[in-house]
Amino acid sequence: MNKISSAEILCVGTELLLGQIVNTNAAFLANELNLIGINSYFQTVVGDNPSRLVQALKIAADRSDLIILTGGLGPTRDDLTMATTAQFAGRSLVLHEPSKQAIEGYFTAMHRNRVTQNNWKQAMMPTGSIVLPNYNGTAPGAIIENIENGAMAKTIVLLPGPPSELRPMFNESVKPYLLERSSQKLRHLFVRLIGIGESAAETRLMDLIDQQENPTLAPYASEGEVMFRITQRVERDDEPDLTQDLLKEVYNRVGEYIYEVGPRKLPEVIKDLLIEQNRTLSLAESCTGGLIASALTDVPGISTVFKGGIVAYDNDIKKQMLSVDERILLQDGAVSENCVKAMATGCRDVMKTDYAIAVTGIAGPTGGTDEKPVGTVWIAVAGPNRCEAKMIFRKGNRARIRRVAMLYALDMLRRELV
Amino acid sequence: MNKISSAEILCVGTELLLGQIVNTNAAFLANELNLIGINSYFQTVVGDNPSRLVQALKIAADRSDLIILTGGLGPTRDDLTMATTAQFAGRSLVLHEPSKQAIEGYFTAMHRNRVTQNNWKQAMMPTGSIVLPNYNGTAPGAIIENIENGAMAKTIVLLPGPPSELRPMFNESVKPYLLERSSQKLRHLFVRLIGIGESAAETRLMDLIDQQENPTLAPYASEGEVMFRITQRVERDDEPDLTQDLLKEVYNRVGEYIYEVGPRKLPEVIKDLLIEQNRTLSLAESCTGGLIASALTDVPGISTVFKGGIVAYDNDIKKQMLSVDERILLQDGAVSENCVKAMATGCRDVMKTDYAIAVTGIAGPTGGTDEKPVGTVWIAVAGPNRCEAKMIFRKGNRARIRRVAMLYALDMLRRELV
Repeated sequence: MNKISSAEILCVGTELLLGQIVNTNAAFLANELNLIGINSYFQTVVGDNPSRLVQALKIAADRSDLIILTGGLGPTRDDLTMATTAQFAGRSLVLHEPSKQAIEGYFTAMHRNRVTQNNWKQAMMPTGSIVLPNYNGTAPGAIIENIENGAMAKTIVLLPGPPSELRPMFNESVKPYLLERSSQKLRHLFVRLIGIGESAAETRLMDLIDQQENPTLAPYASEGEVMFRITQRVERDDEPDLTQDLLKEVYNRVGEYIYEVGPRKLPEVIKDLLIEQNRTLSLAESCTGGLIASALTDVPGISTVFKGGIVAYDNDIKKQMLSVDERILLQDGAVSENCVKAMATGCRDVMKTDYAIAVTGIAGPTGGTDEKPVGTVWIAVAGPNRCEAKMIFRKGNRARIRRVAMLYALDMLRRELV
Repeated sequence: MNKISSAEILCVGTELLLGQIVNTNAAFLANELNLIGINSYFQTVVGDNPSRLVQALKIAADRSDLIILTGGLGPTRDDLTMATTAQFAGRSLVLHEPSKQAIEGYFTAMHRNRVTQNNWKQAMMPTGSIVLPNYNGTAPGAIIENIENGAMAKTIVLLPGPPSELRPMFNESVKPYLLERSSQKLRHLFVRLIGIGESAAETRLMDLIDQQENPTLAPYASEGEVMFRITQRVERDDEPDLTQDLLKEVYNRVGEYIYEVGPRKLPEVIKDLLIEQNRTLSLAESCTGGLIASALTDVPGISTVFKGGIVAYDNDIKKQMLSVDERILLQDGAVSENCVKAMATGCRDVMKTDYAIAVTGIAGPTGGTDEKPVGTVWIAVAGPNRCEAKMIFRKGNRARIRRVAMLYALDMLRRELV
């Protein structure tokens, strides 16, 4: 079995060249290759054009062991990736009977009666290739091995463009294939932090990041979150696990900010904690305006613990629905410790929940003052025993301020629960 | 002045190769190039590695008039794009005094006292280049013209990686430069539709899409929305505008679904309509769980017309906060016409607004029945004169069902307002 040490991602699609869609497939595949331990030095995007695709394939085959192609496997005339790649690899296309049957089955399941002539094209596969079944669409993928190109035999993987088809096909069929052939074996731990900035966390962990050789510690970018990855290179699966010792040291440095070692994001952690403790939650949101409720209700099954929320954007709503005293709004203002505490306790009372989170702040771009500039946010958590509040201040645009407020609010509840 | 007809986007950054961030810069630039009328046939991503960057620059210069580079302009040792590209173009780096002063000014404004030695590196610019000021960061961009490469002189544009710096720099400095040099002049209209699927809209417009040569009509992918673009190629700016005649024909076919010809998305259109009519709005959300409130409060200035909302995830909240009659919940269920109407009128009453939108449905993945499968959503709009409700049904995952419910709910209000 040939070992694979380098890969190149080659995305085919005119809609990418026109900027109509963002190339999330490249990011997904690049992240997966990195986790598998295969180096990836180039990504290329090319349109649905055979001669330019061949040009890109030549360049890629000259510099990488593996090419992962995405897109252009559809049924239309424009979809030329399979035929062009087969020709490049010196293979002809033959009808793959199981794929033909799968396409028929897919059409029956979707209650569409007639398979168009075009769809049979999707069952034409390169001779000698490994066909990858598509359980979420009609286009099967393929792995073409042992393509002669100079000294080294190359491998090409072809995947459909829609992420809802590409991701499961990669996970089910391609990932196991590559894990067996990767020239490196890796073991990972993902450490998720909240309440500390990325650079502050890096400063505390700097010597571990710089000096650790195996396992390694590295920052791991994740939208709005601070994450680190512990990675151990192993020769065999039964080698002792060294990641836990490094994790212990990471806990010594930044343990108070770690909310998860594993795959769960903050809303899922909150859901699981509330379910474990048989507690219910409600929300009173002003500046976040439904963002926290939306993030929580994005998680399936949250309805057992999340009762509802009040988006109290207007001061009248704060008074009327949350029983915030008018004097607080006049004396302290809507963005104040007294107001946020009144919102949280009022919400807990009216919604009859064990906990309530309240958020009020100035998300901007206008509305700030010298005393309370844009980015000032008060957060409170009211629980069975007490109501705590804190202020945070973050520079940035409206979306960022709202997002940070959401994360800190959820974290404040998490700290109450653990 | 050299005319530019083809461009290539070359993004530099190891974080892209590791899949840690999605390449939104490539999509942004590709879309802009397309609007300007410059063809773009390839996009490449390469890491912060000089020899691989030179390799990518050579390939790009051989096949395109213009290369737009992004990323690697930072102050650290890893940031090698400017030096490597200058060397490739046969230019030396010289201190650019205005950029040095701008960096000092930026540090003063950010209240950071000491400019580190590394930052001066960012003021070293290729000889003879056009320096592009950065008002949102420290790294200036550059345009290097007349680079000899075979028969054709090439142009390279260098832009910083962070989108918050790249986008304004492109809009302020690069776009006017390219508009003057593009081998095509284009005039665009963006037509936004809601309430009709993309393929249904395309079917109605098919002959216009296929047969129109100038102006052209083309579908334009946009997240969750159906959009079409009308584009007229002109030789001179004072040529008669032919886009309006085609727009009139598009209105004849699908006019009832057009909510905007221009840049505004649905929440902005709603905001402007409510402000124009001096009307207020509140929300009662069940399955969308704050998503509509969050989308509305994402729009600056919405607070003058949006008072607040109730996320009535639990039936108790529907009864208590929205005065939904218990008998409705028992007889019709929470996902029913009677319930959604009671939610909307209850919300309008309790929030004291002119209009209220209510949404209740089954977003899944579980909770559906044969009679009310996952994807069933009831929407109601209560206004000064009446309360209307309708049911929609959409297949798809939880996120898609919630998103479609949001768009249809906002559109139902829009139809009441116009």
